[in-house]
Amino acid sequence: MKSPEILEKLHTIDSEYRHLERVQALLQWDQETYLPEHGVEERAEQLALIEGIAHRRLVSGETGRLLAELGSVSENPRGREDLPGIERDFLRVMRRRYDRADKLPNDFVSAAAKAEGLSQAAWVSARLNNDFQAFLPHLRNMIDIARKKAEYWGFGGGGKAGLYDGLLDIYEPGMGAAETGKMFAVLRNRLTALLKKIRACPGPDTSFLNQEFPVEAQAVFNRKLMDYIGFDGRRGRLDISAHPFTTTLGSGDIRITTRYFPRNLLSGLFSVIHESGHALYEMGFPPELRASCLADGASMAVHESQSRFWENVIGRSAPFWEGLYPRLTEFFPEQLMLRRVTAGDFYRAVNEVKPSLIRVDADEVSYSLHIILRFELEKQLISGTLDPEKLPGVWREYTREYLGLESETDADGVLQDIHWSMGSFGYFPSYALGNLYGLQITRKLRQDIPGLDSLVAAGQFKPLHEWLAENVYRWGCRLEPSDLIVKITGENLHPRDFLEYIENKYAALYDIR
Amino acid sequence: MKSPEILEKLHTIDSEYRHLERVQALLQWDQETYLPEHGVEERAEQLALIEGIAHRRLVSGETGRLLAELGSVSENPRGREDLPGIERDFLRVMRRRYDRADKLPNDFVSAAAKAEGLSQAAWVSARLNNDFQAFLPHLRNMIDIARKKAEYWGFGGGGKAGLYDGLLDIYEPGMGAAETGKMFAVLRNRLTALLKKIRACPGPDTSFLNQEFPVEAQAVFNRKLMDYIGFDGRRGRLDISAHPFTTTLGSGDIRITTRYFPRNLLSGLFSVIHESGHALYEMGFPPELRASCLADGASMAVHESQSRFWENVIGRSAPFWEGLYPRLTEFFPEQLMLRRVTAGDFYRAVNEVKPSLIRVDADEVSYSLHIILRFELEKQLISGTLDPEKLPGVWREYTREYLGLESETDADGVLQDIHWSMGSFGYFPSYALGNLYGLQITRKLRQDIPGLDSLVAAGQFKPLHEWLAENVYRWGCRLEPSDLIVKITGENLHPRDFLEYIENKYAALYDIR
Repeated sequence: MKSPEILEKLHTIDSEYRHLERVQALLQWDQETYLPEHGVEERAEQLALIEGIAHRRLVSGETGRLLAELGSVSENPRGREDLPGIERDFLRVMRRRYDRADKLPNDFVSAAAKAEGLSQAAWVSARLNNDFQAFLPHLRNMIDIARKKAEYWGFGGGGKAGLYDGLLDIYEPGMGAAETGKMFAVLRNRLTALLKKIRACPGPDTSFLNQEFPVEAQAVFNRKLMDYIGFDGRRGRLDISAHPFTTTLGSGDIRITTRYFPRNLLSGLFSVIHESGHALYEMGFPPELRASCLADGASMAVHESQSRFWENVIGRSAPFWEGLYPRLTEFFPEQLMLRRVTAGDFYRAVNEVKPSLIRVDADEVSYSLHIILRFELEKQLISGTLDPEKLPGVWREYTREYLGLESETDADGVLQDIHWSMGSFGYFPSYALGNLYGLQITRKLRQDIPGLDSLVAAGQFKPLHEWLAENVYRWGCRLEPSDLIVKITGENLHPRDFLEYIENKYAALYDIR
Repeated sequence: MKSPEILEKLHTIDSEYRHLERVQALLQWDQETYLPEHGVEERAEQLALIEGIAHRRLVSGETGRLLAELGSVSENPRGREDLPGIERDFLRVMRRRYDRADKLPNDFVSAAAKAEGLSQAAWVSARLNNDFQAFLPHLRNMIDIARKKAEYWGFGGGGKAGLYDGLLDIYEPGMGAAETGKMFAVLRNRLTALLKKIRACPGPDTSFLNQEFPVEAQAVFNRKLMDYIGFDGRRGRLDISAHPFTTTLGSGDIRITTRYFPRNLLSGLFSVIHESGHALYEMGFPPELRASCLADGASMAVHESQSRFWENVIGRSAPFWEGLYPRLTEFFPEQLMLRRVTAGDFYRAVNEVKPSLIRVDADEVSYSLHIILRFELEKQLISGTLDPEKLPGVWREYTREYLGLESETDADGVLQDIHWSMGSFGYFPSYALGNLYGLQITRKLRQDIPGLDSLVAAGQFKPLHEWLAENVYRWGCRLEPSDLIVKITGENLHPRDFLEYIENKYAALYDIR
């Protein structure tokens, strides 16, 4: 077969695989939003069936043969200048995805899936009962499985890259533990120092947030908010689920979810902005990528850069609330107008720094510290230098050191996150790296659009969408994240822009120096 | 292989096929309820992909070999007394399903699917433009395809059963055109006579229905109504779609839809009861059938008997509104209480007989006449005795004769239904046969539960659910419909109980004789 023929066959496999992934996404979306109580069991069977079919479609002798026939093209697609650039990128992504799946023996995959199921269930009950010991054997098992996975992928064999690099690589291709660790060390020092200064200053008045904000009004306001920031309702939806998420069911069908609490206005509101940021990225992939696996985020961290950009850089900025606050007061006149809360008061309240034991409740300053703590611990767990049995104690030490807080229970400490119970080691760093990508991109954005703040204050997001489409969205996952950030900003990823942003913003908010 | 092994393999195929069918059902349900505008195109591709996978899972060399290995068992499963009864029934249904699909050549199936797509699109625009001529070539094509289909299945080869019998058999196994025609002739005579008498009498006062009933209140009331009649909300849901339907996404996940019009209280309300009747049937299949294709309605008409039983026999009865009407007035005090509308007034209004040109708007008396008209015409279209070109004229004649109405346009005449445009000849009779099954079953039900009316008036539906579960639901499709009705009532299907019910009910309502 000639290259074009092989490519065509690979595109067919890719396209069917993607359709099956999206069918899975619908089954999951429905499970989180509308599935009746008694539908849960069969839904799991339906999901497992489609997952198996999808896996067999991608990881088959046929795919292997087609990739092998292209030989050096797929192994080193950049070397084959006879192919269009987009096809070389397609082959790189196909090859990577195929290898990742193909290198894991079937028996190992089924055993791991089963163990993950048991581990998650054990975690749920261990957390509920604050019983780390009950979870410990499962945690050990998850660590073993993660190590084996990385070994199958060729990491940790005495070469430069260790096992943990192999796990990081799932979420952040090419970003090793050493590089991540260097950036995180800088972050840790500067953020803990900033946190100390902030703690010495009086905080903003947030008492007005401690009122009832009827969820019906929140729901209507948040729909307007999505519209306001440019979420195209013809290409997506907002529904309610226990935990907010974004899911792609088609290139014209990107759905987000949130949940509302009557006494917590900000939770629903900022999760809608956050998830909208993810959705805008997915909606922004250009038509020529839509038919292939290249219509995907460059990495977990780059995806997170987009959600956090909208949530924090835009959504927690003074100009944003200057423009939107009057509309918010129309929905909650008694809670806001009658109490004479101004846009400035609101801006200060949504940026209150108040370190919490719980990661998902963290503010913008302390959030990354939660991540760095987990990074340090999981690195040691995977390398074997930390015995999982000692984890609760070490967790307390780090929490004291990083956040200045004392965990009282393991439920609010080492058991708080689901990730490790699912074997998802290497996932956490993406959250903090997302902040770095986001602010490095923002510096360039501000250079290109000097009047950004006035546009944001005026609710005019179109130039912003266009810039993101042109500089970020258009690439899908054609570029490795490390190449993407250089392409956009001319520099490798670094923590300076994020630190400058956060130090300036909070120095002003807390009147430091 | 031994029989148990073969059976196990067939059960695996059946189970995967069912899961895939339900995944398709979710894709379709979502399309009708929540799919964003720009998601339509890819959804069609996802559906086609899953449909293809499901088809290949069922209709494969493997299934054919397994059924062949069982030889006479699957061809005449009742003859193999060594197998449990439930397995013999399973084999009968598997064999039937396999043969139906396997006997159609792949080329024919793809060509037919394509032609149906074009035909449906042509019908939509022909109906919009009242242009029968534009639809005519597609209709001819659909008739040809339907004839060929019946031929592939072995009908019309000079034997006793003609081509149209083969089409009827899809929806109503074993029920031929001759038998249907005999029952329909009786129905036609008696119903046209009844209609004439009713027309000579003054109708009920329905003016209070011509008010605004806010859709939000309708939505809340209808949820209470579902609950009232025993729809288990843990095993299903109610959503909004353009056309009401019921769909099964799992044995514990049966969903219905409706739509609300502010000036038409009855439309949403009776469609909720109708679809709930379908759902109760699906929810009622016993656990031992749930893992197999036997968890299905005995036939289209038997399914329709259940929806129409709840909609008409229960939902349009005096005792039902005696019990429920006070609750309805709480939701619409201005529209009902202030106008002093009584439960009796409401009962009479929901049973108004007012023949309409449009089938879906028809009352209980004239509805079957719409069906018989279609049956007569499609029988002639398939046998070739009626040239499709003459259809509009013949439609007008029959409408005059059966309903005493003059169709003004083809859009409100021969073009009103989607069925023929999809090639679904043989489908219509199920609707009218459903009435016959329903009332024949009701007679037995009333014998077994003499106090039925008092129970219904008291909103106590539990004995009714138990009786239906024991006599109807428990069989799933283990029995052919003709065997089921004998098992329940001791008699073959006949129109007498339906006619007795309808004549007595409307004689009382319209004070005839």
